[in-house]
Amino acid sequence: DFEAALAEVKPAFGAVTETLEEYRLNGILEYSDHFRHLLATCKTLVEQVRSSEQTPLLTCLLEGPLGSGKTALAATLGLDSEFPYVKVISSDSMVGYSEAGKAQRIAKVFDDAYRSSMSMIVLDDIERLLEYVAIGPRFSNAILQTLLVLLKKQPPKGRRLLVVGTTSAPAVMEDMGIAATCNVCLHVPALREADVRAVLAALQAFAPTDLDAAVASLAEQEVPMKRLLLLVDLARQGVPDGQHISLQRWIQVLTDLSLS
Amino acid sequence: DFEAALAEVKPAFGAVTETLEEYRLNGILEYSDHFRHLLATCKTLVEQVRSSEQTPLLTCLLEGPLGSGKTALAATLGLDSEFPYVKVISSDSMVGYSEAGKAQRIAKVFDDAYRSSMSMIVLDDIERLLEYVAIGPRFSNAILQTLLVLLKKQPPKGRRLLVVGTTSAPAVMEDMGIAATCNVCLHVPALREADVRAVLAALQAFAPTDLDAAVASLAEQEVPMKRLLLLVDLARQGVPDGQHISLQRWIQVLTDLSLS
Amino acid sequence: DFEAALAEVKPAFGAVTETLEEYRLNGILEYSDHFRHLLATCKTLVEQVRSSEQTPLLTCLLEGPLGSGKTALAATLGLDSEFPYVKVISSDSMVGYSEAGKAQRIAKVFDDAYRSSMSMIVLDDIERLLEYVAIGPRFSNAILQTLLVLLKKQPPKGRRLLVVGTTSAPAVMEDMGIAATCNVCLHVPALREADVRAVLAALQAFAPTDLDAAVASLAEQEVPMKRLLLLVDLARQGVPDGQHISLQRWIQVLTDLSLS
Amino acid sequence: DFEAALAEVKPAFGAVTETLEEYRLNGILEYSDHFRHLLATCKTLVEQVRSSEQTPLLTCLLEGPLGSGKTALAATLGLDSEFPYVKVISSDSMVGYSEAGKAQRIAKVFDDAYRSSMSMIVLDDIERLLEYVAIGPRFSNAILQTLLVLLKKQPPKGRRLLVVGTTSAPAVMEDMGIAATCNVCLHVPALREADVRAVLAALQAFAPTDLDAAVASLAEQEVPMKRLLLLVDLARQGVPDGQHISLQRWIQVLTDLSLS
Amino acid sequence: DFEAALAEVKPAFGAVTETLEEYRLNGILEYSDHFRHLLATCKTLVEQVRSSEQTPLLTCLLEGPLGSGKTALAATLGLDSEFPYVKVISSDSMVGYSEAGKAQRIAKVFDDAYRSSMSMIVLDDIERLLEYVAIGPRFSNAILQTLLVLLKKQPPKGRRLLVVGTTSAPAVMEDMGIAATCNVCLHVPALREADVRAVLAALQAFAPTDLDAAVASLAEQEVPMKRLLLLVDLARQGVPDGQHISLQRWIQVLTDLSLS
Amino acid sequence: DFEAALAEVKPAFGAVTETLEEYRLNGILEYSDHFRHLLATCKTLVEQVRSSEQTPLLTCLLEGPLGSGKTALAATLGLDSEFPYVKVISSDSMVGYSEAGKAQRIAKVFDDAYRSSMSMIVLDDIERLLEYVAIGPRFSNAILQTLLVLLKKQPPKGRRLLVVGTTSAPAVMEDMGIAATCNVCLHVPALREADVRAVLAALQAFAPTDLDAAVASLAEQEVPMKRLLLLVDLARQGVPDGQHISLQRWIQVLTDLSLS
Ligand SMILES: Nc1ncnc2c1ncn2[C@@H]1O[C@H](COP(=O)(O)OP(=O)(O)OP(=O)(O)O)[C@@H](O)[C@H]1O
Ligand SMILES: Nc1ncnc2c1ncn2[C@@H]1O[C@H](COP(=O)(O)OP(=O)(O)OP(=O)(O)O)[C@@H](O)[C@H]1O
Ligand SMILES: Nc1ncnc2c1ncn2[C@@H]1O[C@H](COP(=O)(O)OP(=O)(O)OP(=O)(O)O)[C@@H](O)[C@H]1O
Ligand SMILES: Nc1ncnc2c1ncn2[C@@H]1O[C@H](COP(=O)(O)OP(=O)(O)OP(=O)(O)O)[C@@H](O)[C@H]1O
Ligand SMILES: Nc1ncnc2c1ncn2[C@@H]1O[C@H](COP(=O)(O)OP(=O)(O)OP(=O)(O)O)[C@@H](O)[C@H]1O
Ligand SMILES: Nc1ncnc2c1ncn2[C@@H]1O[C@H](COP(=O)(O)OP(=O)(O)OP(=O)(O)O)[C@@H](O)[C@H]1O
Ligand SMILES: [Mg+2]
Ligand SMILES: [Mg+2]
Ligand SMILES: [Mg+2]
Ligand SMILES: [Mg+2]
Ligand SMILES: [Mg+2]
Ligand SMILES: [Mg+2]
Repeated sequence: DFEAALAEVKPAFGAVTETLEEYRLNGILEYSDHFRHLLATCKTLVEQVRSSEQTPLLTCLLEGPLGSGKTALAATLGLDSEFPYVKVISSDSMVGYSEAGKAQRIAKVFDDAYRSSMSMIVLDDIERLLEYVAIGPRFSNAILQTLLVLLKKQPPKGRRLLVVGTTSAPAVMEDMGIAATCNVCLHVPALREADVRAVLAALQAFAPTDLDAAVASLAEQEVPMKRLLLLVDLARQGVPDGQHISLQRWIQVLTDLSLS
Repeated sequence: DFEAALAEVKPAFGAVTETLEEYRLNGILEYSDHFRHLLATCKTLVEQVRSSEQTPLLTCLLEGPLGSGKTALAATLGLDSEFPYVKVISSDSMVGYSEAGKAQRIAKVFDDAYRSSMSMIVLDDIERLLEYVAIGPRFSNAILQTLLVLLKKQPPKGRRLLVVGTTSAPAVMEDMGIAATCNVCLHVPALREADVRAVLAALQAFAPTDLDAAVASLAEQEVPMKRLLLLVDLARQGVPDGQHISLQRWIQVLTDLSLS
Repeated sequence: DFEAALAEVKPAFGAVTETLEEYRLNGILEYSDHFRHLLATCKTLVEQVRSSEQTPLLTCLLEGPLGSGKTALAATLGLDSEFPYVKVISSDSMVGYSEAGKAQRIAKVFDDAYRSSMSMIVLDDIERLLEYVAIGPRFSNAILQTLLVLLKKQPPKGRRLLVVGTTSAPAVMEDMGIAATCNVCLHVPALREADVRAVLAALQAFAPTDLDAAVASLAEQEVPMKRLLLLVDLARQGVPDGQHISLQRWIQVLTDLSLS
Repeated sequence: DFEAALAEVKPAFGAVTETLEEYRLNGILEYSDHFRHLLATCKTLVEQVRSSEQTPLLTCLLEGPLGSGKTALAATLGLDSEFPYVKVISSDSMVGYSEAGKAQRIAKVFDDAYRSSMSMIVLDDIERLLEYVAIGPRFSNAILQTLLVLLKKQPPKGRRLLVVGTTSAPAVMEDMGIAATCNVCLHVPALREADVRAVLAALQAFAPTDLDAAVASLAEQEVPMKRLLLLVDLARQGVPDGQHISLQRWIQVLTDLSLS
Repeated sequence: DFEAALAEVKPAFGAVTETLEEYRLNGILEYSDHFRHLLATCKTLVEQVRSSEQTPLLTCLLEGPLGSGKTALAATLGLDSEFPYVKVISSDSMVGYSEAGKAQRIAKVFDDAYRSSMSMIVLDDIERLLEYVAIGPRFSNAILQTLLVLLKKQPPKGRRLLVVGTTSAPAVMEDMGIAATCNVCLHVPALREADVRAVLAALQAFAPTDLDAAVASLAEQEVPMKRLLLLVDLARQGVPDGQHISLQRWIQVLTDLSLS
Repeated sequence: DFEAALAEVKPAFGAVTETLEEYRLNGILEYSDHFRHLLATCKTLVEQVRSSEQTPLLTCLLEGPLGSGKTALAATLGLDSEFPYVKVISSDSMVGYSEAGKAQRIAKVFDDAYRSSMSMIVLDDIERLLEYVAIGPRFSNAILQTLLVLLKKQPPKGRRLLVVGTTSAPAVMEDMGIAATCNVCLHVPALREADVRAVLAALQAFAPTDLDAAVASLAEQEVPMKRLLLLVDLARQGVPDGQHISLQRWIQVLTDLSLS
């Protein structure tokens, strides 16, 4: 019985941290004022759950384009929170599960969280948890309903819970009622020109004199963090460690990959 | 057999009350004349079930925007009714149930109610009970049909039942025939400007001189009770107990959370 | 085996009558010439099944708005017919049945009817029997096909059967082919102004001098019987037995309930 | 094993005839030249199957409005054919069967037919066999595919088969490919004015002097045989045997039943 | 295990031929130059599979109106090929099979073919194999996917396979990707006026002097072979063996059957 | 347990190569500069996975018309990579598997790959793996979700994986989110006029003087490699080994096969 087992459970702290670190292998670059403010707002929410007795449950949705850094941000919050229970629910670990199996596992994580005085749950890539596809559209209503209920369910007396969801399909979250159910909804943007420059500079990818030209070579207005990191990595192929990427190599990589 | 067991059943009163109290943790503020009138109308319905022999079954639908206070209102009616049997049917307690399982459990609650001389059942968040989602749209027809039948089924001779449903999707209730099946349909509104002021005043959140400015800072025309309570709570973070929220802090919270 | 059991079966008369009475707790008011004519036509159909050898099967559909009195009318015919077998098929008694289970139970009632020399079956609220909902739309095709077949199936030699269906969704019945399959289709209307007056007079709800004003207070052009009876009942709350409802109380009830 | 059992099977002749007679309780009135010609064409098809070695399989679809006499016509052909195997496949006898069960039973009847030197199968009310409903539309594809295959499958060497289908949904039969699969498609019409007169005269329902007026009273341009027979039967209620129906009574019945 | 059993399998030749002959009971009339050329092209494909080492798999789709002679043509190719393994996959022999069962049986025939040095498989009436119906549309995706894979799967080294499909729904084959997957797509037309004359002449149905008139009597521009053969057969009813059909009889048959 | 088994697994190299060779029976002709560049870009990706520690997972989609050479290209990359684990996931080997079975088998291949230090997986004909069909459209969402998760899932620390998918339905891949999930998307085109000439020359199909005319005979603007190879093969039928195809024979083949 659940009520009976409602004693505080402290999972081994190290293990959890390790997993969270995997979601932000490259650390976190605070590449703009806007990003720093976003981070601060998120931390306010963590603080609220830690300190307020009036807010046993707080739910926050991070939405933004593919690869903009949503999961890395959520993982960072989890690491910094130092809550006794922090858990990422990701479809990675549920390949091959049935709809009911996934719903059950999600509910299990919430049940575990309710046993800890303060908890944080990351619902990573909600559209993937929901098995969503735009054609149809199709998705698992069983999992959706489970989420909608859990996002509103009050933890037992004296327990507090922060739920952070990530999604790159905010319109779908609206239609499904997930956005409206969350208390707060924050946008994690792709990189604009100044952000790209800041990231390239921080990565020391180019000689300072080449930086402007390197940024200008990117045709697209906005680049997600993930894509920029990949392009730099590809361009570094064959470049000796510690040396800069030449503009020529950079432009070749950009050309090759958009020859599609 | 059901008929055989039709003896009056008195559940332990305290237990039920406790659950109902959970749905209105913050008590009930009678923040406007309109709200007081709404409350009074609802109580007339309770009275009718208590006193009239001609009305063995009365069904009432409370509809209004997310977080406007529908569930708290229904719980209040249940508490005040002092009926021997008062039960909230909520999807909270049915996570992981199959459609058939949910339908069965709902029917069970009605069966139990029929054994008590006077009963009240709250169908909380009907769209969630129905596993409704606007995309498709999808929902459980098995559960819907169960509700439609139970909302019309006469209790056995001498038993009386009040059913109060809550929903934030009145158009869906129309399309599904639930609205038409209910005897009475009442609207629970979000807070308008004057209501917001009344609530903020009652909460003693601001210095009296700041109240007008605090109300004016809210860009939205209408704010649901739930959202207002959360905003106040967030703004109170770091504010020592008994002190007022400064206007500056208030505006910062409002800005941060709409930076999305 | 069915053929083997084709002996005449006489169910205990009283029991059936009791159930039928439940569907017309308030008796039948013959509130207008039109209603009286409707009743007469229905009775002709009963008579035809009783007396004609050429008509072993007669099927009649009663359609009209929610609460207009269709079920009460069908129950009245059943009571007056004095047929040895009269049975109401209602979704009330099939909550929790599967589609196949419902279809089977319906077929069972027809099988039982075929064993009686003269029978009447009421298919109450056909859209509910079919688990119909306008969204989709969805319904049980298994049950629909069962009904369509049974509505055309000749009883065995020497047996006669009257089937009366009720519905508040005549357009759906058209689309599903039920209307066309029935031999006769009759409309049971809501109350117009003169009808309302007749009913209020018969109920002695108002002082004769208040009657005109009471009728005029009703904004709606047409009121179903069910709604009118509820309004009167609510208005009577707190009014001592035998006293009239005051106009003031009447108008307050009307106002409260349309504040939604 | 089927091939092993391919010996000629002669079902008891009388039994089959009895069943066929049930489908034409009122006999067959040859009410017009057109109807006589239709009957003759049908009989040519029966003759073809009896006599031609080139035509082991002949398929014919009878389509026309509800109650126009399609089933009675098909039954008449079966009776007149004197084929050793004549069978009506009707949904009557399959209430409660699953899709697969129905498909299996249909296939079984064809298998039985293949064992007889000459056979006729009536597929009565094909849309009902297919569990068709216009909403959706829905139907059993399993049964449809079974029919489409069986309607093209050659009987074993030396066996001959006539299949006659009836339907009141010719457009559906087109869409489903059943019409195109049948070799011949014939229309069974409702009664026009002259036909109505011929039928009423044959039934001796009215005094000869009243016949014209009786026909003229029918508002509808076309009346299916079934409806006309019902109207006459209802009008005869209370009229002593052997007496004519008065025009007054006739008009009252017509009026009552269209008050719907 | 399949690989282990990859020895050459020679089915009894006579049995297969017998089955193939059933699909062309009337022999093949080479009624026009166009038809002869079509036949020649098909035979080139057979030759290619027999002789080329570069073409282990060749797939050909025969499409044309209902009854135009597609199956007879495919059967002729199978008979003439003298390949050790020739098999017709037809829905005839799979009545009552589940989707999975059909898919499995189709795969089995391909597996068997892979064991023979040279094989030909006829996929007869592909839309029927797929349980296709235009309403919806509906079809078995399980069977479709099986076909799409098998139509591209290379036989094991040293084995060669010709697949010939027939269909009267070429647009559906396009939409499903079957047409694009086939290497070759050939049209089998209905009979035009000159073709009709050639067929009627070859059948010696009319006196030479009546031939022109007989052809002219056919209202339709194009007649499928199947329909023409049926019409002649019906017209021959009652005509003594060896005698010609009279024009009068011909025209009567044409008239009767289009009275629908 | 999977983690426990995470030792490096080296499959027998020869076996894998053999299978890959089957997908490029005709070797690879580098028929144009564009094609050579495409090949080079692909090889850069292989190199990246081999050498970069920052890129544990790289995903690449090859899209182009049916038969343009996508699978042959992917197989070539696998052969040249000399990675210890290279595996083609093709629907060929999963005929008759259920959706869940296919998803499971795909996941198994990824699991195996994670145990090797460097791996390459070819997802051949993704639309076929997904059981996609444009009518509906229909596809297996279970398999799609598995792919979407696996295409983003990081291999365990120290393991590197290249995934190459092929598809001839790029728009579908967009709609399903597969294109956006892949890091790189490359187009494999059909042959233009100059490419056709280069291929025909390399195959020594025609006398050099006939080459221009042979190319000009092809009506279509673009021809996929697969179709061109088939046409040449068909034209070679009956042409002695080592001799050229005559223009006459070439044109006859082209004409015959477009007579459809
Ligand atoms: N602020 C940052 N500074 C440095 N690296 C970052 C930052 N944000 C994200 N990254 C890196 O960018 C990559 C993509 O980030 P992440 O996976 O969090 O994006 P995402 O928005 O969750 O992507 P997806 O939409 O695919 O789920 C990761 O490798 C992550 O470590
Ligand atoms: N009149 C009131 N006075 C004080 N607090 C209230 C009042 N009404 C509601 N609340 C509080 O506001 C919050 C939201 O109320 P409640 O959950 O009843 O809203 P709801 O309309 O049921 O929301 P939802 O649409 O999410 O189900 C709760 O914390 C409740 O205690
Ligand atoms: N003619 C009548 N005189 C008096 N009371 C009536 C009359 N007709 C109906 N009633 C009463 O009105 C109420 C509604 O009638 P009833 O349930 O038959 O309506 P209905 O049309 O079947 O409703 P629904 O559409 O909800 O099934 C019942 O309490 C019934 O007893
Ligand atoms: N030519 C006829 N002469 C006399 N009675 C007829 C004739 N045709 C039909 N009937 C009678 O009319 C009634 C309806 O006929 P039948 O059931 O064959 O019509 P149907 O077209 O099959 O109807 P449905 O569309 O409902 O299946 C039956 O009672 C039948 O006996
Ligand atoms: N060229 C021909 N000469 C003589 N008879 C033919 C010829 N082609 C077809 N037939 C005959 O015509 C009839 C119809 O042919 P077949 O069944 O092959 O047509 P189909 O196109 O496969 O028809 P369906 O579309 O119904 O499958 C058969 O009896 C067949 O023997
Ligand atoms: N560059 C090339 N040089 C020579 N032969 C080639 C080349 N590319 C492809 N081929 C050959 O062309 C044929 C078709 O190639 P392949 O199967 O790879 O095409 P595909 O694009 O995968 O086709 P599909 O869309 O049907 O899957 C094969 O026989 C292959 O060996
Ligand atoms: Mg992410
Ligand atoms: Mg609520
Ligand atoms: Mg009713
Ligand atoms: Mg019929
Ligand atoms: Mg055919
Ligand atoms: Mg390929």
